[in-house]
Amino acid sequence: LDQTLPIALDAMGGDHAPLSVVEGAAMALRKLPKLQFIFYGKEPLITPLLDERPALKAVSRVVHTEDVVANDAKPSVALRSGKTSSMRLAIDAVKSGEALAAISSGNTGALMAMAKLVLKTLPGINRPAIASVFPSQKGKVVMLDLGANLECSAEDLFQFAVMGDAYARAVLHMAYPRVGLLNVGSEESKGHPEIREAGKMLKKSSLDINFAGFVEGNDVPQGTVDVVVADGYGGNIMLKTAEGTAKLIGTALKDAFRSNIWTRLAYLLASETMGKFKKRMDPRRYNGAMFLGLNGVAVKSHGGADAYAFSHAIRHAVELVRNNTNQRIIDELAQAGPILEDVGESQAENVP
Amino acid sequence: LDQTLPIALDAMGGDHAPLSVVEGAAMALRKLPKLQFIFYGKEPLITPLLDERPALKAVSRVVHTEDVVANDAKPSVALRSGKTSSMRLAIDAVKSGEALAAISSGNTGALMAMAKLVLKTLPGINRPAIASVFPSQKGKVVMLDLGANLECSAEDLFQFAVMGDAYARAVLHMAYPRVGLLNVGSEESKGHPEIREAGKMLKKSSLDINFAGFVEGNDVPQGTVDVVVADGYGGNIMLKTAEGTAKLIGTALKDAFRSNIWTRLAYLLASETMGKFKKRMDPRRYNGAMFLGLNGVAVKSHGGADAYAFSHAIRHAVELVRNNTNQRIIDELAQAGPILEDVGESQAENVP
Repeated sequence: LDQTLPIALDAMGGDHAPLSVVEGAAMALRKLPKLQFIFYGKEPLITPLLDERPALKAVSRVVHTEDVVANDAKPSVALRSGKTSSMRLAIDAVKSGEALAAISSGNTGALMAMAKLVLKTLPGINRPAIASVFPSQKGKVVMLDLGANLECSAEDLFQFAVMGDAYARAVLHMAYPRVGLLNVGSEESKGHPEIREAGKMLKKSSLDINFAGFVEGNDVPQGTVDVVVADGYGGNIMLKTAEGTAKLIGTALKDAFRSNIWTRLAYLLASETMGKFKKRMDPRRYNGAMFLGLNGVAVKSHGGADAYAFSHAIRHAVELVRNNTNQRIIDELAQAGPILEDVGESQAENVP
Repeated sequence: LDQTLPIALDAMGGDHAPLSVVEGAAMALRKLPKLQFIFYGKEPLITPLLDERPALKAVSRVVHTEDVVANDAKPSVALRSGKTSSMRLAIDAVKSGEALAAISSGNTGALMAMAKLVLKTLPGINRPAIASVFPSQKGKVVMLDLGANLECSAEDLFQFAVMGDAYARAVLHMAYPRVGLLNVGSEESKGHPEIREAGKMLKKSSLDINFAGFVEGNDVPQGTVDVVVADGYGGNIMLKTAEGTAKLIGTALKDAFRSNIWTRLAYLLASETMGKFKKRMDPRRYNGAMFLGLNGVAVKSHGGADAYAFSHAIRHAVELVRNNTNQRIIDELAQAGPILEDVGESQAENVP
């Protein structure tokens, strides 16, 4: 616990880089004094920002590169031509052991492609998944996959369940997280064959997973389960819809409070409570999508992240490292070996 | 316009039937005096409720049946054994011309299966879709399919776009609705092959559709487009997640206002504005999922609908009838004939 925690940051990724990255690191450092940073990017832009932040500067170094992965670059192109990009160098630092985690607010597809190529998947994992944590009626809920794998086999979904379970135990310190599979209904006969087959695998598994069956989109904010497993298509729609709906209501509420002198006075009276409400719902606190299933920690921060949001992405990455999440995933999967082969042979029934 | 509007109601469907159905009809009648009702269900339960509502009773008749489709009945079972159920009789009334629309709060799968079997699809339509209207930042947005077809071909999605467009023009009176395809990103290389192919078909089509390309989950509440087309899997997740998120925030907000004397006072000061806000977001006003693409009007009300919600399902059904939505769909699709054959032959590229 006395060890320092070196973190590699893509200083050029995202709409507000490098300021959001540098100031976000400063904010995270105030919460976690053991942090150290390596900033990858355009040194003449980064150093002046560090000069203004002596405490941060004392634990940081800058690795200069001119190359930046464009936001609209195709992952395949970024892989080929971005070998000295700030994003790639940050991931390379995790591979070499210089850093314990890499964080970028840049191009998601490129970051995933690079992380997969450089870090490789964990033993027993077919494909990494993007996971994130969200507020729910009952606390927090882990969601994965959020868009890395549009189509998933039953085995992929089973592995995501193991990864989500391990994450909820290791990082959120849940004793026996309830794991649900996202579907269009809770009956066993519903949904795509892959989802139904994954449900059977989780039921039959000898793993100590608290499988709660199928859940629907409304179960996620309600907190019916602690971990929601979906293919990347369903998970991405779930994520974006929840974000958009929260924003719609937030805007409508703001308009409502601004509508006349009485509502403005009401807002003043309720401002402390409203502040708590806003804080609980603030998406910036949940910023930082984790690439689970990789042999190393890589976190994707939102492209529009400000410093406060970026500081949370750093903190999420640190939690992954500190709680040995990857080792937990490996251990859980190792136990699941036999049952996987056993169930994989049975065929999904073609219930319409 | 002077014609009466006879509507067939499944008086036994839903958690609060038959009271919610009868009182919902009474509420709708106050808004639309041309309505007439046929109630299908247990006469001894329905007649006393009508006796208490003379104005409604004057325009209503009751057709007695003991049979009710169970909420957990499989669609195939309901089709075989529910031929004299209240749900089936309501749909039969549309087929025979006795009623202009059928509405039920019962089992969705059974209702769709019966409606398909009895009413048949419109000429040129492969599969009906479930559509609904939701509030957005800019007004209203039409979403389909919400769960009738989990997997859809590019042609299915193309047809849904035509149906959604026709609905937005006919019922929401939009002059040139923007139509978007739900995907996991806005770039043309993203998503399932079917979605990408449907995008090409809509782009190349000679139809006068205002195709806006791919949209993401957050575009729906933001109102980026007026019509959102998805397969039933994605659409269902979008719908349920939006509902659940709205509920989460609503509950948190209620708790916030109740937290102390100042927040209670604030709520009193802002109560009129908050009332408007709640009304705008009230999901009951958007109750009534329409089965588009059928040769007749059938509307699914939420299982938990109260009378107010049910009255809105009736009003949505009436809008579909009055605006000749089905004829518009037929007319639009007839124009699309040649282009469909033309584009259908090209293959989707396998972009990852």
